[in-house]
Amino acid sequence: MTRRITVRTRRQGLHEITGEVYGVVREAGVRDGLCTVMVQHTSASLLIQENADPSARRDLETWLSRLVAENDPLYTHTTEGSDDMPSHIKAALTATTLSIPIVDGRLGLGTWQGIYLWEHRHHGSSRNCLVHVIP
Amino acid sequence: MTRRITVRTRRQGLHEITGEVYGVVREAGVRDGLCTVMVQHTSASLLIQENADPSARRDLETWLSRLVAENDPLYTHTTEGSDDMPSHIKAALTATTLSIPIVDGRLGLGTWQGIYLWEHRHHGSSRNCLVHVIP
Amino acid sequence: MTRRITVRTRRQGLHEITGEVYGVVREAGVRDGLCTVMVQHTSASLLIQENADPSARRDLETWLSRLVAENDPLYTHTTEGSDDMPSHIKAALTATTLSIPIVDGRLGLGTWQGIYLWEHRHHGSSRNCLVHVIP
Repeated sequence: MTRRITVRTRRQGLHEITGEVYGVVREAGVRDGLCTVMVQHTSASLLIQENADPSARRDLETWLSRLVAENDPLYTHTTEGSDDMPSHIKAALTATTLSIPIVDGRLGLGTWQGIYLWEHRHHGSSRNCLVHVIP
Repeated sequence: MTRRITVRTRRQGLHEITGEVYGVVREAGVRDGLCTVMVQHTSASLLIQENADPSARRDLETWLSRLVAENDPLYTHTTEGSDDMPSHIKAALTATTLSIPIVDGRLGLGTWQGIYLWEHRHHGSSRNCLVHVIP
Repeated sequence: MTRRITVRTRRQGLHEITGEVYGVVREAGVRDGLCTVMVQHTSASLLIQENADPSARRDLETWLSRLVAENDPLYTHTTEGSDDMPSHIKAALTATTLSIPIVDGRLGLGTWQGIYLWEHRHHGSSRNCLVHVIP
């Protein structure tokens, strides 16, 4: 079973989608299986990360934005804005697809893990993910 | 069903394999399911990225080659050439496996997404990927 | 079938788990299928890498630790030790889940590929991975 979930991001950064992904698993009624998530964009990505302390997520965002700077003279792909090429690079350095075992009807995440959509554009967008569940 | 696809890369950079992967999905005759791709090498990797403007892919390559420089005095693993250790690092920073839902007999990629084999060695090689399809 | 494997890491770096993952595939008795591995922590990650020359793995570790430095004044998430925030960043830049086709009862890895748990904390810990196998 595959469902599309849509997340309206309004700013750069991590948007938790654990609940939305779990909703698809619950709808599928699968007790033991595999859940795969794929983001259908090239300027956003996926991340399983700390869902406890928001400072860890802020530091992650700040660190990556320093590593992949805007207005780098190296860029030739500049027509879509100063945050476009950095977005593609950030997406390449992180995940586009994730596969998570389903155990006893729940996502097999660790205690501190959440699933995030990582928006790399400043103003965000309507972002689609496919969620596939197999028993 | 698992098939091996072989890509002859002749230079560093992104080589699109969307058509080859889709060929396996079509051969499997699966309408709804999951397609997993794995590259069987440690100096090449996989990427889902922008397939519209080639300048984005060139900038990606240039940026990563600047981040992971050749002839870094840090390297001790140098016997296989100056592009060998950077290739392993680049592969570690990008993807070795990807899982893509199959929807209505097609890969569930977004409008601008293509699947690429990322060759990290200068002269390329014959690169094998496994493509697994499950209904 | 899903099994949990536990790895006791005692120091930062790559710990090979190919044998443990293969043990689950063998127990499942699956000839052709898909094996998914997920690490249930946010300060450790997964990597498929060179299993021949240990110098390649050491350089990988040293390079990443230079890129993601400790005591970076950028960090605000500092209460859990100087290696904590770098661990989250390193985990974000590498893989949390991997999916490997099973071919003829074996993991479809390339000749030089091994599966590693990458411990990012200095002192290590008891690390759990879920291994899911489907025919």
